[in-house]
Formats: sequence, C-alpha cells, structure tokens
Amino acid sequence: MNTRKGEHCWYIPDGYIPPTSAGQLTSHEAICVLNCNEENTRLEITIYFEDRDPIESILVEVAGKRTKHIKTNELHKEGRTIPLGVPYAIEVESDYPIIVQYSRLDSTQKELALMSTIAYPLK
Amino acid sequence: MNTRKGEHCWYIPDGYIPPTSAGQLTSHEAICVLNCNEENTRLEITIYFEDRDPIESILVEVAGKRTKHIKTNELHKEGRTIPLGVPYAIEVESDYPIIVQYSRLDSTQKELALMSTIAYPLK
Amino acid sequence: MNTRKGEHCWYIPDGYIPPTSAGQLTSHEAICVLNCNEENTRLEITIYFEDRDPIESILVEVAGKRTKHIKTNELHKEGRTIPLGVPYAIEVESDYPIIVQYSRLDSTQKELALMSTIAYPLK
Amino acid sequence: MNTRKGEHCWYIPDGYIPPTSAGQLTSHEAICVLNCNEENTRLEITIYFEDRDPIESILVEVAGKRTKHIKTNELHKEGRTIPLGVPYAIEVESDYPIIVQYSRLDSTQKELALMSTIAYPLK
Repeated sequence: MNTRKGEHCWYIPDGYIPPTSAGQLTSHEAICVLNCNEENTRLEITIYFEDRDPIESILVEVAGKRTKHIKTNELHKEGRTIPLGVPYAIEVESDYPIIVQYSRLDSTQKELALMSTIAYPLK
Repeated sequence: MNTRKGEHCWYIPDGYIPPTSAGQLTSHEAICVLNCNEENTRLEITIYFEDRDPIESILVEVAGKRTKHIKTNELHKEGRTIPLGVPYAIEVESDYPIIVQYSRLDSTQKELALMSTIAYPLK
Repeated sequence: MNTRKGEHCWYIPDGYIPPTSAGQLTSHEAICVLNCNEENTRLEITIYFEDRDPIESILVEVAGKRTKHIKTNELHKEGRTIPLGVPYAIEVESDYPIIVQYSRLDSTQKELALMSTIAYPLK
Repeated sequence: MNTRKGEHCWYIPDGYIPPTSAGQLTSHEAICVLNCNEENTRLEITIYFEDRDPIESILVEVAGKRTKHIKTNELHKEGRTIPLGVPYAIEVESDYPIIVQYSRLDSTQKELALMSTIAYPLK
C-alpha cells in the first residue's frame, strides 16, 4: 500500500459563488483540505475563468495534522478576488500530499441546498 | 508525477433535465470542463438514452487556460436536442486532457436542490 | 489509453430509500448505468444490510449503446425487496464494462433534496 | 481484475455536524462502510481539526457481508466527541478492504439538504 496520504495536485471544474443568500445561512463554497503529514504544507491555488486570464498562485498554508476548510470568497491576490455569480474552476497544488473535497452551500432561495464531491487528483 | 492535467474521456451516467422550475432559479444541468492546457481543445459529446439511438459527436470548443460550464439544454446536433424529463447519459471526449464535473440544479419544487460529482474518467 | 469503457464491478455504500414523500415528487434512488458497448450486458446486483443476510444476484439487463436508470425500490428477488427507511449498500457486477452513478431524491420534507456520486469501481 | 473489494484507508476532508435542526429530520452525517469480506473488520477512525490535535484511533467493528452507516455524532474516545458546528476531517483505516461513502443531511433551515460523495481511497 502507498503510504503517501493523498496527492499534490487537485482540480474542481465547477466553481460558483452564489451572489445572493436568504434565510439564516450565507451562500458559500469551501475547498476542504486534509493534511495528514507532520509538516505544514503550502498550497498554490489557481482560479480559471471562462472569459479572462487565470488568477495564479494564491498562497495558503495548512498546518501538519490539521484540516482547513477554505472559503473561496476569502481568496485574493494583488487586489483580485473571485467575482460572485461567475462560473470558474479551481486548481490546488501543494508541497506535501493532501486530500481535497469541494462543497457548496446555496441559499439563493430560502431553504439551503448542498453539493459536494471529492476533487479530481493528478496521480 | 504525471504532468498531463486530466484525461481524454469522461462519463456521466445520470443525466436528467428537470422539466419544470419554480421560484427564481431555472432547473438546469451543467457539464463543467477545465482545460489547463495552453491550447484550445475540441470536445465531442455523445448523449445516450434508454430507448433510442445516441446523439453522437456534438462539438464544443474550450479555450486554453479556461473553464467552460456547458448547459446541457443548449446542446444540439442536426435539429436534435436533449428532451426534458428523460433519463440519459453523457460521454465527453476531448483532443487535449481535461477535467470534467457534472452538476444539476433542480427547482421543480420551490426551493432549489443541488447535486454534483466529478465525472468518471477513462485512464 | 484504455479502450474499455468502464469497469465490471461497482459499489455504493450509502443506500437508503426514504420512507415518506411530500410535495409533487416521490422520494426515490436510482442506480444509473451507462453501457457504451455494442452488446447488451447483464447486471448482477447484490444488496447488503446492517443486520441481515444480503439479497444476492438480482438480475437486470442493459441494452448496448444505452443507459438505464434503475429505481432501487423496483428491485426484487424471490419475493424479497429493499425495505424502506433502512440503511443498506449496493454492489453491481456486469458482464461488460459499464459506468455507474448513484443518485437520491429525498422529498421527506416538502421541498426536495438531491445527492449524487459516481459509484466506486473495482479496477 | 483485482479481487480485493475496496481499500484499507479512506479520507473525507469535509466533515461538519450542523449544530441545529428544523422540521422532522435531525441534521447528521454518516460514514457509510461496506464490508464485502466474509470476515468482520475493525475500523480505526481518526478525526482531524483546524485548531487542535486529532482524536486518534476510535474503534468501530463492521461485520462480514454487512454495511454499517456510522453517525459521526456517536463517535467518541476517552470522553472526547466531535463538537457541533466545527470544520473537521475524517480518516478511516480498516483491517480488511472496504468501501466508504460520506453523506450529510442538513436541516438547519426547515427543508432538508443532502450531500454525498465516495470518500478518497489510498491505493
């Protein structure tokens, strides 16, 4: 059995931050990262769009033996953020092997909706 | 590590376009494609049904370093489109390696429901 | 590239048929199968439970170049069916390689909820 | 074809127990395990957090030829349980190969929401 817990590069083609919320929970997405290594790892996140150049190399640190659930609306690089209501895609690269899951909570209409999937790893 | 970002052939067995919508969002599905290559890639999409012959080789272009979230109700070939309210399945083939995720928003009843999964790749 | 479109054996650990429905859509699950081969294929479905012996070898036919979205509440073998409101799990084996996705629509409360995932293949 | 039905180590980065419920169903998550082997298997579950040390080696038994849908709020080790409303992640290791799927039912607002994904296996 492979002892490397995860992979170095993960993809999420369906990114979308719902522009509105209703009810008591705010619409949001999370890139959920698990770092089973003893060491901290540094993520480089790239955001791809349909009609403009990518935002490249957004840096995020994840401590060793910890998880981090990263809200996509908090990602930023040199003043650029992910616009609301726009289709985009996510690439996550890391120094150490990790596991990545993507989830979205949409409360555009009053009762919330959820979706989630393990991201696609490069092996 | 493999440097090919994705695969050439992807499958989504559970396609279904909800025939009705309620509330402020319209029921729809999306085939979300990420093309990390510098080059544009051409997709060939085949639609399989339960009770009739497939619609083969619907062509879609995805630019290099871009994502495209393709709404399935907009796909068409020689006058054929995907009927609403009918179970079907999707095959996506591409010239360059890509990553594919499938999502559905169903607002048949008033508050929306979401589902999503990374598609199944041929390796 | 592998030319075999899919695998022969697939698993879905989270089966559950919601016992009640509300609103205009009925709670149900579907095992969605895509058979890209020219030939028909025969499925053997096994249902595992938490507290009783499995229902083994339920047979289902899927035509060549077709999809089939199988409702789990319609599966039966020698008078046994899957009880409502009970946790169970699904194994799907087939003569020819196929691709399998699992989806559930839950309308226990008035507005529907959806979940879906590509099943887990044996390779 | 591999005859080993599943893998020994599975990951779920997006764990979260919704702190509140509304309507007739209670918010909860399930780690759904399928053990196709004749033998019973012992799981060792580790829970990772964002800001504190993991809860390691929570033991759970799954009988042979059975499934078990484990509610995460019932897991405990030496008086520690998973707090509600806190992001966490799950690692499941087992003696025998198994298949693992993760699902969450969120009824924070009145109508329920569902999400599910096959967990990520180490191969």
